[in-house]
Amino acid sequence: MENNKSITKRDVDFAKWYTDVVRAAHLADYSSVKGCMVIEPNGYAIWEKMQEILDKKFKELGHVNVAMPVFIPENLLKKEGELVQGFAPEVAWITKGGSKDLEERLAFRPTSETLFCDYYKDHIASYRDLPKLYNQWCNVVRWEKETRPFLRSREFWWQEGHTIHETEEEAIKETHQMMDVYRWFHHEILAIPTINGVKTEKEKFAGAEFTLTNEALMYNGVALQAGTSHYFGQKFAKAYDVKFLNRENKLEYVYQTSWGTTTRMIGGLIMVHSDDKGLVLPPRIAPKQVVIIPIKDTEEVTTLSNEICTRLNENGIVTYIDNTEKSAGFKFAEAEVNGIPVRIEIGPRDLEQNKITFVRRDTSEKYTVDKDIDVVNYVSNLLETIQNDMYTRAVERRDKLTFTAKTYEEMRDILNTQPGFIHADWCGDQDCELKVKELKGCKSRCISEEPLITGKCVVCGKEAKHHVIWGLQY
Amino acid sequence: MENNKSITKRDVDFAKWYTDVVRAAHLADYSSVKGCMVIEPNGYAIWEKMQEILDKKFKELGHVNVAMPVFIPENLLKKEGELVQGFAPEVAWITKGGSKDLEERLAFRPTSETLFCDYYKDHIASYRDLPKLYNQWCNVVRWEKETRPFLRSREFWWQEGHTIHETEEEAIKETHQMMDVYRWFHHEILAIPTINGVKTEKEKFAGAEFTLTNEALMYNGVALQAGTSHYFGQKFAKAYDVKFLNRENKLEYVYQTSWGTTTRMIGGLIMVHSDDKGLVLPPRIAPKQVVIIPIKDTEEVTTLSNEICTRLNENGIVTYIDNTEKSAGFKFAEAEVNGIPVRIEIGPRDLEQNKITFVRRDTSEKYTVDKDIDVVNYVSNLLETIQNDMYTRAVERRDKLTFTAKTYEEMRDILNTQPGFIHADWCGDQDCELKVKELKGCKSRCISEEPLITGKCVVCGKEAKHHVIWGLQY
Repeated sequence: MENNKSITKRDVDFAKWYTDVVRAAHLADYSSVKGCMVIEPNGYAIWEKMQEILDKKFKELGHVNVAMPVFIPENLLKKEGELVQGFAPEVAWITKGGSKDLEERLAFRPTSETLFCDYYKDHIASYRDLPKLYNQWCNVVRWEKETRPFLRSREFWWQEGHTIHETEEEAIKETHQMMDVYRWFHHEILAIPTINGVKTEKEKFAGAEFTLTNEALMYNGVALQAGTSHYFGQKFAKAYDVKFLNRENKLEYVYQTSWGTTTRMIGGLIMVHSDDKGLVLPPRIAPKQVVIIPIKDTEEVTTLSNEICTRLNENGIVTYIDNTEKSAGFKFAEAEVNGIPVRIEIGPRDLEQNKITFVRRDTSEKYTVDKDIDVVNYVSNLLETIQNDMYTRAVERRDKLTFTAKTYEEMRDILNTQPGFIHADWCGDQDCELKVKELKGCKSRCISEEPLITGKCVVCGKEAKHHVIWGLQY
Repeated sequence: MENNKSITKRDVDFAKWYTDVVRAAHLADYSSVKGCMVIEPNGYAIWEKMQEILDKKFKELGHVNVAMPVFIPENLLKKEGELVQGFAPEVAWITKGGSKDLEERLAFRPTSETLFCDYYKDHIASYRDLPKLYNQWCNVVRWEKETRPFLRSREFWWQEGHTIHETEEEAIKETHQMMDVYRWFHHEILAIPTINGVKTEKEKFAGAEFTLTNEALMYNGVALQAGTSHYFGQKFAKAYDVKFLNRENKLEYVYQTSWGTTTRMIGGLIMVHSDDKGLVLPPRIAPKQVVIIPIKDTEEVTTLSNEICTRLNENGIVTYIDNTEKSAGFKFAEAEVNGIPVRIEIGPRDLEQNKITFVRRDTSEKYTVDKDIDVVNYVSNLLETIQNDMYTRAVERRDKLTFTAKTYEEMRDILNTQPGFIHADWCGDQDCELKVKELKGCKSRCISEEPLITGKCVVCGKEAKHHVIWGLQY
């Protein structure tokens, strides 16, 4: 019913455009539970596909899935001081079971380092039991004040990998490996280019030795943290007493990592790729890749539609026929708003000339070709072209919105004109980082490995330590 | 480390045997959160396989997945009186978000009828929008007093399907269809025979018009409710105002169903099939179907092991080689405790005679055969035989523990000797049902469609209305 609702123009009001697309494509809706969303079938199908692809990769790398309890007793949560300080303001508390007050209140997990440590401590004895490469797919809760579907909601869905290792070297390698997985996933599957680097001390995960991050840039120049991978060293192991007998037969604390990505990436897909007509999905993540729209119900049209649908599905291209009683124009609009990458129009007029028509969702380009074409090959190529073109356009947009600032004033001007990724040197002093934050809340996204630009801190002008990429964020 | 821990004999102490198997096979463990379990990798892999098989079937029948919020505001939960009365004693309440008390406390979902209704009411307008066939895979919480891994824990994992329909007929058909899916799943995949029927008024789901149930019998003669499918009529629709314009252009309330099955079926698998050596899994649900154990590291052994492993995996039989540094005997025991359906032993002594050995987990039978056998065909057949034999044995055991009682005294004697399914007629009066419950807590499992036995109620002797199957339960 809501498909023909008008979508606000992206360049007129980006925030409204975003929620209009979420609603019009039936990805998610608000619920009666404040700050919590319902992920609707179209949105959940994208999440299922994300899970399928990532889960396969995790398992190829030796990880296994588990389910930890959703509750964390307050005492357990408090054992690692930095973690609890980082999360305390956003924890939801369970205080009653049935009609009774609980003796100890329970946190709804905001993240599960504590539970994994508590489990690991009783399940390893020697280096022979290491590494443990566990992951879980679950819901988590953080009591956010301002929420937006996918981007920030009190409940969200994610995967959290928690691994423990015999040596620092191995754990650090894992931390980087999982960041590479996320980069691969965002670039190759979601067609979203990301920059990667280390978070500053201020921006790293509470309790981590260091945090690696994957940062994407949205169409409007605002950054989205797309995946993070944390190295904890022995910090949690010491707080939760996770020890093993090492090869020298001495007790040693394990070295630990955690890494996660979330349903917010559905929001990222929208804000990088979608347009004024609705959702645009890269073919590799689209739950439905091709829609066939029969223009009339003649026997020839029906036969050919069925034949093409079967052949494409048999060859792993997810295809469906829109046989509903709506008008062809309505079906076109619906396929567009829902982001189906390729639309095939089959109608009697085209067929008189032995032609059928292919339409790309991303560019609206139409190709009228011979109906006897090798359709599997043609569509495969078209989907690959769309995937690659979407990535190229996203890189171009990102590059166009990537700036360099040599002075604080330049930074301010950029942020006032058109936000984006801003490269600028930094002395390493948190006061300077906070000074940048005064510019519309601009934060360091990550420390880049690129060489220094001027050698001077963009804020204080003193000697710079790091080349940092800055930006506004969701 | 814990694999060689001795498992209590099943016939000595069934309850202890059960938890020993759960622990020894690394399926689940207790956690620091009272009443909540950790599902470990071996257990979670079974749940993943269950999800994969059921989810595929649900989707073939037109269902789609969604994610509803985990919280239910108290007011929303209270709208349907019977439901809230049924669940009130077991609800966990969230009362604080961060440091602030919530204005309205939130229930952790014990089941999600309320949330689905609340969503549906805003998303349907006419019969054209029906049916809605939604399902979700998620965690739920019920504040149980006594808990046991998989069978009863405060948090558990399940799928809950919630569908709404235009007509009573269609909704009732869906209720039965989903019960058939569960029956198929339990019989064909889990090799667990079930009986099916309608629950009595007393035992049906709070708020349902009727509840269909799938009841399995464990090795010790205690029943396990394996899956339920509820028909709600318009009861929830009226409480939550879920209306549509029907074909006569009049506003009408929708007809609704819900149906679910849970991680407790992992417990069911153990209690139907496993033995004193540990877990026994039917091949169709086993995450790993074949283990190859090289007896020595000769080149010939290694080459053949790799070759067989590759061929089996290429043909869809999940196989791995145990290359760890443990002794062969230890590896055998480990494969046994973990329930790997087929073990292939490859050793130099056998190979001198051109032989390799296959061992069935379920019967311990050994087959020493020519090493050049068509291994894919041989193992496929062996797995099918195991699957069928396990089902047959489970049926035999179930039948052996199925009794008929004509009088209350007979019922008492059966329950005192060896519990099981007890067929007995019933007048339909709840007082008589409660009188049966005095016998060790025995309850009606379901109303059978079989003809009456004596025509007299087993308790009061008055005219019987139903042939009922009774039993103790988990």
